Amino acid sequence: MNLNYLRDTQDPNQSTQTVDEERRNFLTAGLVGGALAAGALVAGGAQAQQATKATDPWWPHPKWGKDDQAGASNWITPAKVLDSAKWIKDGKIYRVGRVYDSGMPFYGKRTFQIRITPVAASFGTNKLVGHDEFVATEIGQTGTQFDGLGHIGVQTGNEGDLKEVRFYNGVTEYDMIDAYGLKKLGIENCKPIFTRGHLFDIEGLKGRMMEVGEEIKLADVRAALQKQNMKEEDIKEGDAFFFNTGWGKLWMKNNDKYNSGEPGIGLEVAKWVIDKGAVMTGSDCWATEVVPNPDKNLVFPVHSELIPKNGIYNHENLDFTGLIADGKYQFVYIFSPAPIKGATGSNGGPIALT
Amino acid sequence: MNLNYLRDTQDPNQSTQTVDEERRNFLTAGLVGGALAAGALVAGGAQAQQATKATDPWWPHPKWGKDDQAGASNWITPAKVLDSAKWIKDGKIYRVGRVYDSGMPFYGKRTFQIRITPVAASFGTNKLVGHDEFVATEIGQTGTQFDGLGHIGVQTGNEGDLKEVRFYNGVTEYDMIDAYGLKKLGIENCKPIFTRGHLFDIEGLKGRMMEVGEEIKLADVRAALQKQNMKEEDIKEGDAFFFNTGWGKLWMKNNDKYNSGEPGIGLEVAKWVIDKGAVMTGSDCWATEVVPNPDKNLVFPVHSELIPKNGIYNHENLDFTGLIADGKYQFVYIFSPAPIKGATGSNGGPIALT
Amino acid sequence: MNLNYLRDTQDPNQSTQTVDEERRNFLTAGLVGGALAAGALVAGGAQAQQATKATDPWWPHPKWGKDDQAGASNWITPAKVLDSAKWIKDGKIYRVGRVYDSGMPFYGKRTFQIRITPVAASFGTNKLVGHDEFVATEIGQTGTQFDGLGHIGVQTGNEGDLKEVRFYNGVTEYDMIDAYGLKKLGIENCKPIFTRGHLFDIEGLKGRMMEVGEEIKLADVRAALQKQNMKEEDIKEGDAFFFNTGWGKLWMKNNDKYNSGEPGIGLEVAKWVIDKGAVMTGSDCWATEVVPNPDKNLVFPVHSELIPKNGIYNHENLDFTGLIADGKYQFVYIFSPAPIKGATGSNGGPIALT
Amino acid sequence: MNLNYLRDTQDPNQSTQTVDEERRNFLTAGLVGGALAAGALVAGGAQAQQATKATDPWWPHPKWGKDDQAGASNWITPAKVLDSAKWIKDGKIYRVGRVYDSGMPFYGKRTFQIRITPVAASFGTNKLVGHDEFVATEIGQTGTQFDGLGHIGVQTGNEGDLKEVRFYNGVTEYDMIDAYGLKKLGIENCKPIFTRGHLFDIEGLKGRMMEVGEEIKLADVRAALQKQNMKEEDIKEGDAFFFNTGWGKLWMKNNDKYNSGEPGIGLEVAKWVIDKGAVMTGSDCWATEVVPNPDKNLVFPVHSELIPKNGIYNHENLDFTGLIADGKYQFVYIFSPAPIKGATGSNGGPIALT
Repeated sequence: MNLNYLRDTQDPNQSTQTVDEERRNFLTAGLVGGALAAGALVAGGAQAQQATKATDPWWPHPKWGKDDQAGASNWITPAKVLDSAKWIKDGKIYRVGRVYDSGMPFYGKRTFQIRITPVAASFGTNKLVGHDEFVATEIGQTGTQFDGLGHIGVQTGNEGDLKEVRFYNGVTEYDMIDAYGLKKLGIENCKPIFTRGHLFDIEGLKGRMMEVGEEIKLADVRAALQKQNMKEEDIKEGDAFFFNTGWGKLWMKNNDKYNSGEPGIGLEVAKWVIDKGAVMTGSDCWATEVVPNPDKNLVFPVHSELIPKNGIYNHENLDFTGLIADGKYQFVYIFSPAPIKGATGSNGGPIALT
Repeated sequence: MNLNYLRDTQDPNQSTQTVDEERRNFLTAGLVGGALAAGALVAGGAQAQQATKATDPWWPHPKWGKDDQAGASNWITPAKVLDSAKWIKDGKIYRVGRVYDSGMPFYGKRTFQIRITPVAASFGTNKLVGHDEFVATEIGQTGTQFDGLGHIGVQTGNEGDLKEVRFYNGVTEYDMIDAYGLKKLGIENCKPIFTRGHLFDIEGLKGRMMEVGEEIKLADVRAALQKQNMKEEDIKEGDAFFFNTGWGKLWMKNNDKYNSGEPGIGLEVAKWVIDKGAVMTGSDCWATEVVPNPDKNLVFPVHSELIPKNGIYNHENLDFTGLIADGKYQFVYIFSPAPIKGATGSNGGPIALT
Repeated sequence: MNLNYLRDTQDPNQSTQTVDEERRNFLTAGLVGGALAAGALVAGGAQAQQATKATDPWWPHPKWGKDDQAGASNWITPAKVLDSAKWIKDGKIYRVGRVYDSGMPFYGKRTFQIRITPVAASFGTNKLVGHDEFVATEIGQTGTQFDGLGHIGVQTGNEGDLKEVRFYNGVTEYDMIDAYGLKKLGIENCKPIFTRGHLFDIEGLKGRMMEVGEEIKLADVRAALQKQNMKEEDIKEGDAFFFNTGWGKLWMKNNDKYNSGEPGIGLEVAKWVIDKGAVMTGSDCWATEVVPNPDKNLVFPVHSELIPKNGIYNHENLDFTGLIADGKYQFVYIFSPAPIKGATGSNGGPIALT
Repeated sequence: MNLNYLRDTQDPNQSTQTVDEERRNFLTAGLVGGALAAGALVAGGAQAQQATKATDPWWPHPKWGKDDQAGASNWITPAKVLDSAKWIKDGKIYRVGRVYDSGMPFYGKRTFQIRITPVAASFGTNKLVGHDEFVATEIGQTGTQFDGLGHIGVQTGNEGDLKEVRFYNGVTEYDMIDAYGLKKLGIENCKPIFTRGHLFDIEGLKGRMMEVGEEIKLADVRAALQKQNMKEEDIKEGDAFFFNTGWGKLWMKNNDKYNSGEPGIGLEVAKWVIDKGAVMTGSDCWATEVVPNPDKNLVFPVHSELIPKNGIYNHENLDFTGLIADGKYQFVYIFSPAPIKGATGSNGGPIALT
């Protein structure tokens, strides 16, 4: 996600009309302009209350400690790897990442550009020639993207105060910002993921593609567990959670709709995922979470719960087609981020192994 | 590798002095200007003869067929994965890729640039902020890089004739070239690698860092096998071969020397690797092969043998420090390239699992 | 223009249907796929004959000599500057270049990307802060673009033979190509333009925006001269020629239509411009020439006549709104290209001064 | 200049030793880490006092008004152009900008990258081919660079508070920041420069290249005026001021020294320039101002005086060789920035016309 060019006003005097206009702009432009009129808080439910805790310190991390920068990837210990490897049964590899292509849907104004350099004269009696590609892109935030801990933070103080913009473990924007790569929480701190993955096929459960703004509820997750012959008690700490909504069918078929919002989990399932000790989440959508959120006051609240507050990673724009075709809902998930110093995320080629 | 800006003259009247000057330029500039005076061919030995076969058709590929674009990654079948997985014994993951950093040594004029975009206003009552990175680089050819089949070809006809510049399976430059991504042989065609890896620690064998231009001979490889308590007959088709020369100790410590050439395998070991049915090679150097080649007429001849002629991949700028410290020379090697459409290679985070 | 990803078949057996399909693809995609069925040549008129001279040597340049790389910018001598400066009468500067913006229409897959880097800590007791932008773009071929002599060439021999791809003064692709900047004919060789500009307002003449594929004929140019109270005999060698079609009204208003083709000059006016000794042409379109050309066998024939064969520059995507509003059709045209070593063109801020 | 990755501590308890270390780092790394020990203020003279006014509001601009975004370029009126044009006497154009090349010296980690895309198949019976370049760079801050009003600001409140980072006319970072281009004060707001330029050849005056940290004093400027047969009273409002130090002789000859600091003007001459009503300054150095400043507490104080406080532009890395060879110290200076929306500066091809 890139939220830099969006603007949310906290002005309590802002009229509802303006709010609605911003909402409409969001729906047409595929961007998020979650706006707030002070009065709207009255209507806020459980989620809104959770959101109002935004400024409560979530650091230091109770399990990984105050200096940790690896977050939930710390779950991936040798014991965890060995236990996960038990799920390698038929040796089949599923590529669950998408091909990187300039025609992909992009969030906001992000881009993916590739240019090939030319072949010219040959070298040696072996007459060798070669050429390269040149890529310019938000590398951790385009296509199949793995959100790192430097991507999302929370303004915990006054608007515009970089010393009170907090990320995972309380790291401030002021301390980590650098034009040439984040000084802290770069994706190079994330340990390779080799764990047990659970796929919840909500599209399959509902028998249809989910729609924009449609939230995956915990009841849906549990129904999917049952339908897929899985047991909630089999889920272990450090496992990965994936959600299939059907939204991915729009990929490069209807990019405008794909970008217009998405179905996904809300704070209810996010809390469940946190309680289970997830290493990461993932989905066939661009944010994994429902957009817009049913609580209009909240903007990507699942992101702010999972990433800065709990150090849980998120893999976006995945493709579970092959797994679902084969009825494979549990697998070894393998993804080792490209350790790009100071990056907010990583590209790559995630695989599910059965 | 990028060879575009280099120029090799085939002019038989070129004086030896010019050749030597080009060689010196290469040694000081860290680039390769392998030059040839016609008379020099007299001195050519076995390798030169191999090189003179440059224009013999190597296509269609006898095992993978005329339309194949996946090359040696076809070795990675479910059976191969299951067999490889037997080597998962202690669950330890070794990161064998290097951190991507603008201060890395680069071949020629390649670059790796990262810029962070700014955080601004927050969104929603959850006060979320976010930022991205923007990367501009030869993504498949900088840092830890995985050479794909669209990277290296051979001029099989007249200089400058794109219809006789051939890559793997005989694909011509004329048919694959496109400013916005190769139309054939892009890295997205490579299947994920999950195989048995064998590491030959030649630095350990010799008790010292190898030097620029020093070739790893087959006798060295066999001596390393013995020293490391490994057996040549245990090597199977589809395995991966890694060579540690010690050259990697120069990484970001002495980039000029690192780029000035390198130790590595020559055509002798390359032929052995091909005969063994390798899926890929790799090393702690930037080309895996000895540079300059002992036969001065040849420029990156191992590249032209492995990649276009045999479809074998090559992983460069790896780091085996952790594996060697633990005495681990055999492991499961896992690397799933980022499927960048039309790219010549891939970045990523390769791991060795024991 | 970028034509790399387009493919024109010369196969005389190609069916007309395929040709028509390519044409339709062009019209919908905004790209040019000028196709040729051998039989179609029968219908070719004067232009086609001119086009069939494609392979006749046009080098060395009869006026500027065999080693020249500056082309028609050689017209800009001190005497020419002094004579042009006589047209400075009221001191008014018109900005005739457009603002560079990522939302501009682009030819094919070109792009213009800008990212801002963040402000962080301040420096010194003066508490200075700063930030930069990072731009990634086809710098000489996006937005208001000034085509240089390394941009367009002609295949004078067999398809795919780089030794017979010729540019201005006969320079071959084989001799100039380099992944990191053209070795010859880079835009740094162009001398600053300070000359007399003549604007032909064909939109004003016709009382409407011209349409896609509508050619500006010499009769139109002469009618515009008369309507604008200008005399053909006042045109001097080294002057610049500008054409207003109205097409520019679509800029960032209807990019799809803007890119779908354009009105502009054809070979008739191009020949007249060459005969007059033009230093450059320019227009409010993206190619200055009519697209598609009325002769379906020709693809950007004005480009191949002006640039490689005559060394005449071309400024695209200009905006004459201010000049026309003030009835100013003659002015001093000032454009000094950014001397980007080895680039095919230049961005910048051209001005007309009256 | 890019200062984002630098850190200046305001800690009054910081030891002098640390300060000196930072200074040494600056001298070796070519970056600026102007540091401050509270006690050092005692030694501060007139400049330091000027610097302590950093937080006094300098907005709205007394002459151009509170909403102005064009700054000193407002001086360039038709009357000014006409008056300047009187200096066109011999019609000679001097290119005073440098060639853009990846081998240029860069401030900090900035870069200039150019890649050429390949020629492939030809089009039409006219057999046209073409190719482009792709450039990735801090376009307004590399090579010959024209600093705009969005480049430099001042922290007028607490460190890290974006609402108290002020630029020209008091615009705050919080209001202008956007990942995809500044929302205010972008270089597209600058009017084209066509004015009278005065060159002060201090190298010529002193008979030697000036040295790093050597300040051009007002006495030097006046001595140069006399030596060059120019009169101070001939300088008019809206004129441009250029300083030749000889430092430019290091360009691409000794980049390390070139970047290690530079000679240039200090606050004394800056004040004089402001009083004269300059539209812009320029030099053959990378910052025009003396680095490090003789007052160790100040970091680029001339930048913070000229740009945010007075809206005066600055052209860096110019080359006056041709002008000085011809003894031309007064000329028409023509530079029209590329109107890149939201950029901090511009590349281009500035010219001096006599």
